[in-house]
Amino acid sequence: MAVQTVATPSTPADTSSEGSTGSTGSTGTAPSAGTDAAVDLGPASGLTCRECGTLFPLGPIFACAECFGPLEVAYDLPEGDPEALRRTIESGPANIWRYAPLLPVPADVADKPNLNPGWTKLVQADNLARELGVEQGKLFVKDDSGNPTHSFKDRVVAQALEAARAFGFTTLSCSSTGNLAGAVGAAAARAGFRSCVFIPHDLEQGKVVMAAVYGGDLVGIEGTYDDVNRFCSELIGDPLGEGWGFVNVNLRPYYGEGSKTLAYEICEQLGWQLPDQLVVPIASGSQLTKIDKGLKELIKLGLVEDKPYKIFGAQATGCSPVAAAYKAGHDVVRPQKPDTIAKSLAIGNPADGPYVLDIARRTGGAVEDVDDAQIVDAIKLLARTEGIFAETAGGVTVGVTRKLIEAGLLDPSLTTVVLNTGDGLKTLDAVAPTSQATTTIRPSLDAFRAAGLAG
Amino acid sequence: MAVQTVATPSTPADTSSEGSTGSTGSTGTAPSAGTDAAVDLGPASGLTCRECGTLFPLGPIFACAECFGPLEVAYDLPEGDPEALRRTIESGPANIWRYAPLLPVPADVADKPNLNPGWTKLVQADNLARELGVEQGKLFVKDDSGNPTHSFKDRVVAQALEAARAFGFTTLSCSSTGNLAGAVGAAAARAGFRSCVFIPHDLEQGKVVMAAVYGGDLVGIEGTYDDVNRFCSELIGDPLGEGWGFVNVNLRPYYGEGSKTLAYEICEQLGWQLPDQLVVPIASGSQLTKIDKGLKELIKLGLVEDKPYKIFGAQATGCSPVAAAYKAGHDVVRPQKPDTIAKSLAIGNPADGPYVLDIARRTGGAVEDVDDAQIVDAIKLLARTEGIFAETAGGVTVGVTRKLIEAGLLDPSLTTVVLNTGDGLKTLDAVAPTSQATTTIRPSLDAFRAAGLAG
Ligand SMILES: [Zn+2]
Ligand SMILES: [Zn+2]
Repeated sequence: MAVQTVATPSTPADTSSEGSTGSTGSTGTAPSAGTDAAVDLGPASGLTCRECGTLFPLGPIFACAECFGPLEVAYDLPEGDPEALRRTIESGPANIWRYAPLLPVPADVADKPNLNPGWTKLVQADNLARELGVEQGKLFVKDDSGNPTHSFKDRVVAQALEAARAFGFTTLSCSSTGNLAGAVGAAAARAGFRSCVFIPHDLEQGKVVMAAVYGGDLVGIEGTYDDVNRFCSELIGDPLGEGWGFVNVNLRPYYGEGSKTLAYEICEQLGWQLPDQLVVPIASGSQLTKIDKGLKELIKLGLVEDKPYKIFGAQATGCSPVAAAYKAGHDVVRPQKPDTIAKSLAIGNPADGPYVLDIARRTGGAVEDVDDAQIVDAIKLLARTEGIFAETAGGVTVGVTRKLIEAGLLDPSLTTVVLNTGDGLKTLDAVAPTSQATTTIRPSLDAFRAAGLAG
Repeated sequence: MAVQTVATPSTPADTSSEGSTGSTGSTGTAPSAGTDAAVDLGPASGLTCRECGTLFPLGPIFACAECFGPLEVAYDLPEGDPEALRRTIESGPANIWRYAPLLPVPADVADKPNLNPGWTKLVQADNLARELGVEQGKLFVKDDSGNPTHSFKDRVVAQALEAARAFGFTTLSCSSTGNLAGAVGAAAARAGFRSCVFIPHDLEQGKVVMAAVYGGDLVGIEGTYDDVNRFCSELIGDPLGEGWGFVNVNLRPYYGEGSKTLAYEICEQLGWQLPDQLVVPIASGSQLTKIDKGLKELIKLGLVEDKPYKIFGAQATGCSPVAAAYKAGHDVVRPQKPDTIAKSLAIGNPADGPYVLDIARRTGGAVEDVDDAQIVDAIKLLARTEGIFAETAGGVTVGVTRKLIEAGLLDPSLTTVVLNTGDGLKTLDAVAPTSQATTTIRPSLDAFRAAGLAG
């Protein structure tokens, strides 16, 4: 299949906090030299506009040339023999590539150097269930801190990497304030790509180190995160950016598909069953929409029995544009200026907000938010009940789960999966003020006795 | 089987940096109430003295009552039908419990709440091999940063937890300066144990948070790490410590067995074959000896074909008592005062040093060390070649591997497995000075062009 060469408009695309916001003109980049050959991305058959349905050939484009709507991957999925497909998957590797027949990747993807993310633990969280009043055996935490760079970003970057390979890109890039920088740097290193990641120049020291250690170029941009994004959009449209795959911009349609693997794994780990309820964090909203897409694919393929499921969206109150729209009964999302400790979810103008609202309403879910104090409480609740130290985004989903149960919106007698998408080691500051030594004593039994901690 | 009740001498046991050093008198603790019932620890048949061979019943004891030698677990292993055993293992869970028939745990261990560590990635490190001059396809990194709390300590704590359950302990404890505190706190939380962890009062803030977040008691001790250990030894011998399982003291024989799972996984992941060469970090030395024990068990059980293998030990120059003894041709290890960035390996008086020397010499391996600058270089080498961000201990093994190849001691044409036992996120300070942004520019294409990073 020939790669479509789309002339790149000069209007910059607008992206924000590692997720694209509403597209504002640019539809993609010209592929670099050498991408005119047939593109093999497995079952991916093209890109389709989510607004007007126009179909485009596979290529490094991300917005519809007709209506500027977002593009997503269309597939020829292996329908007809669910048992054979299930056996293929179950005998596959213990990572996302077991689902290669359902992803925009070549069939031999597992043989290529990449970080092999996924197949993270689905933890039956009976202790947490007890605290939240959920029936024993019904509450699960999908813990994506077990990925190679300890966030779900490894799943999506792995898809973008395969697309970059297919399109002949040689540099992997992104704008980032956190998890994505490390995921891109690590994946590029392993796969033999050059990487060049753009960050705000005043990013916290620890995050700079986590991104720089993989040896790619790391460029501090004097300005805000918005300035970084505007700059990246300019670069994509300029000859300077030729051969560059920006995972969350010109490779975004492929990138997003990585989140489907969360749906696949959850169902397979539940014994090829749909959960009744899912609680999913909302940043750009892409993850939630792709989880819904993944669940619908499993139903269509006959891998799980069809039944209703509810998807709940979770935001931090300090950046809750989708929750606000949901509660107000609106179909459009009004942008907010983020102010929350849940930085990995701090997208004030989430591109997929309207789709999220639609899914929450259609499935009978809801969108709820919790404030920073509730986020911290929830992180610590998950840690002391299940031994899982979550990133702030995990505090958001656990906190929202609690709130939804209290409000009677989430049924505590049904199978519920709560996502933890990142690792607490990356957001230590959130819990530091309230996670300290119980006491300090002299090294003597008398002092210990006096502290009252024995027995 | 009845639990042996050993009268506890008042002489304190000496432990250091999360690993016991030479035992100095105490042999164990009186089990708490309720442990007179039969102890089911699966194939574990007793404890045997590594010095005089005396056999003891299973119990919370760690030193020989006859000669004060260290005790280790003896087994009735499932010999006779390797194919059946292999099938059992391969159909088991994707964690250490697939090897339950070879571990001191009950057969139903996988059904009990614990963190289910292990089955971490064995990464074929072709990029690193290219840099080190190792033949393509022959170099592997066993990456234990994928464990639940991101270090190999989850493997050993999981064994200690099962022993604690079997002996009726209700509090899980340890002295720690790092990885172990988090591993114990998390495992205890998940399993419904109380935890109480002892740390030096002036531990770095980040490490305090990582240990405290799981909600157990965390006690700062005014004094050095040696003071913390002395205090813990006193507590074990006192009624105040009744019902307390110190994972690396009175549960140490069980705890140590967790390292065998590294050997099992490596061989299974290599297709049920022994590697030719292993490079293993040395702290107390226990891990290296247990890996050797695990390999020998696989041979004895017929799960792998018998052939020679070499085990190489790796230390930081700033704490290299075993390497020094190896190079001097000594059989005894002279204690050192540690001064290295590889804090998780900083045991100046390693209890298993003599056993390590014996294994390195018997198998044809060696013990080598690298200095702090070489450790940092090696961390960054592994990160930029394979996308694996290792703890300082991983820098030690990769650095030593390079040194051994250069010295002609490690054969670059043979299958070699290098261990990374921890996560770089926990030792960010080591690489921070040399892991910074490439450049900082204004958000303009002109500035980017001038920086010379395009193309
Ligand atoms: Zn369209
Ligand atoms: Zn003895």
